[in-house]
Amino acid sequence: MLVNGHHYRTVWMEQSTVHMIEQNLLPFTFSVAEFPSCAASCAAICNMTVRGAGAIGAAAGYAMAQGFLEEDDPNIARTMICATRPTAQNLFYAVNRVWQAGITGGKEAAVAEAEAVANDDAEASRRIGQFGAELINDGNNILTHCNAGWLAFVDYGTALSPIYLAHEAGKQIHVWVDETRPRGQGARLTAWELTQAGIDCSIIADNASAHFMAQGKVDMVIVGADRIAANGDSANKIGTLEKAICANYFGIPFYIAAPTATIDAACSDGTAIPIEERSADEVLWQQGVDEQGAAHTIRVAAPQARARNPAFDVTPAKLIRGIITEHGIIAPSIAGSTATQKQ
Amino acid sequence: MLVNGHHYRTVWMEQSTVHMIEQNLLPFTFSVAEFPSCAASCAAICNMTVRGAGAIGAAAGYAMAQGFLEEDDPNIARTMICATRPTAQNLFYAVNRVWQAGITGGKEAAVAEAEAVANDDAEASRRIGQFGAELINDGNNILTHCNAGWLAFVDYGTALSPIYLAHEAGKQIHVWVDETRPRGQGARLTAWELTQAGIDCSIIADNASAHFMAQGKVDMVIVGADRIAANGDSANKIGTLEKAICANYFGIPFYIAAPTATIDAACSDGTAIPIEERSADEVLWQQGVDEQGAAHTIRVAAPQARARNPAFDVTPAKLIRGIITEHGIIAPSIAGSTATQKQ
Repeated sequence: MLVNGHHYRTVWMEQSTVHMIEQNLLPFTFSVAEFPSCAASCAAICNMTVRGAGAIGAAAGYAMAQGFLEEDDPNIARTMICATRPTAQNLFYAVNRVWQAGITGGKEAAVAEAEAVANDDAEASRRIGQFGAELINDGNNILTHCNAGWLAFVDYGTALSPIYLAHEAGKQIHVWVDETRPRGQGARLTAWELTQAGIDCSIIADNASAHFMAQGKVDMVIVGADRIAANGDSANKIGTLEKAICANYFGIPFYIAAPTATIDAACSDGTAIPIEERSADEVLWQQGVDEQGAAHTIRVAAPQARARNPAFDVTPAKLIRGIITEHGIIAPSIAGSTATQKQ
Repeated sequence: MLVNGHHYRTVWMEQSTVHMIEQNLLPFTFSVAEFPSCAASCAAICNMTVRGAGAIGAAAGYAMAQGFLEEDDPNIARTMICATRPTAQNLFYAVNRVWQAGITGGKEAAVAEAEAVANDDAEASRRIGQFGAELINDGNNILTHCNAGWLAFVDYGTALSPIYLAHEAGKQIHVWVDETRPRGQGARLTAWELTQAGIDCSIIADNASAHFMAQGKVDMVIVGADRIAANGDSANKIGTLEKAICANYFGIPFYIAAPTATIDAACSDGTAIPIEERSADEVLWQQGVDEQGAAHTIRVAAPQARARNPAFDVTPAKLIRGIITEHGIIAPSIAGSTATQKQ
């Protein structure tokens, strides 16, 4: 996608160095960070320089390629990468593809496969947008949660890809952007992406979605997924479950948009998906910039209070109208049989 | 309730000056502000120095008494007070009581009635706590939203009053405290109150409630209300509707705790309750203190993005298991006939 007139992907590799858009600085500063080693790339995945299912996957694939370039025993690199983030299926999918290529074909094959993983992700996102855009009518109000835009993938995104393509087709759309506490990916990243693209949007507190649903001002909900079980249960950013339950209550269609790489056929249902619990400080403290542009980290909770911070939740398949994949819109119940298809 | 060993109400009057705990500075600074005129008290209600249904009511009652002390025509004061906040029924209830007393009995009667409004609020809260505590079992996990503690009333509170009394009775309780964006009254005020009282609690992002419900870790939900219609539909802090829908989905009992002064018999159902829309800046910017204790206001959203900020939503009566009042726990459907009872 374009940033200030220049085309960017979220993550790419030049020689043995992985480049990533520094997402922790967005939306206030746009910069690209460079990670010359597998260990550095792993740290970037951990600290969320790169975040979002597809972008994590591509970064993990490139890190695995770095592992082959650096190590006599790339198994060490593989272990390190797989320990960075536990929830996103794309990470394990990408590592496995590059691992297989490297083990059988060596360093160059690993690098080529990492590139293929990234290209496949971008192409899958574009096709998700094509299928999803058909669901969107002129004048629709669409609610989304977190950031499943192009910043969360290599390009285009998943939940936002249909919105971009519908907008390009001339449809008037308004997007309700859930703030997505605690890290605020909606307010920071989705609102930034949509504003850059000239798409009308309003940030709302996560608390406000049901209110606008009750008023008939939400026509559909589209969100991404970090891992989809074989039965269609879907793990996504914390709060997705609340949106799905509320959409169901009001009879509003709720869609997951995700490439089939997100489907984990080995996971029979949502109870088998591990849920990452992140630092309580993400809830208790907030980061941002003051009117002069200076960055501050401020406490937004009572001084001695503690917090819990699950980063994801699981939405049961029965609340999902359909999963928008690169192969078309599928029923959640057939997710498992779709997982093995290659693009 | 006690603050640093000293007993405080949230709002009181000495001679013609209204005193209020400065809630905008909590939980980082505890201080009492003084408002020598009706106009100053109105400004304090507007800028949320005082907030919460019962505390707003008491403050409005005192402001109305100030109006009688100051004005030849207290109708000007009445109009000004009624324009401060549109949603809380307690405000209009208190103003009407003091107005009637002042019109018939003069300045002294107005002051005495304002005092009676505050005393009735404190006593109603205590009785709500007694009835509500019977619902709570040892070991319960209770979810609450926003702050309906003693800071939101004159003393004791509503949603938190049963928790305080159950705790005093020796029951082990853990409270899930919704952060309650955008203003964070849960993370700031409820967590502060509960921590002061030595009650075990965890702040969670508003997004996380359904996740903990799904895991069987929420035994009941208790929240306050700002206005209850005759049919039991209840307006409360934005996000309450989401919690009620989710609790209903998981079969978890959802209670409103509110004095009957909150019931507006003239309001047939929730569609007649006006919903205040507050400044978008509350969503786009956050206030807090850094590690050195210096206050900052920081932007937490994309630079050019805009926001919508409804402050309340309406939970339909069918999602409410019961309303805990000072007269006992009532079915939402009989709210209207309970409204006219005096204590």
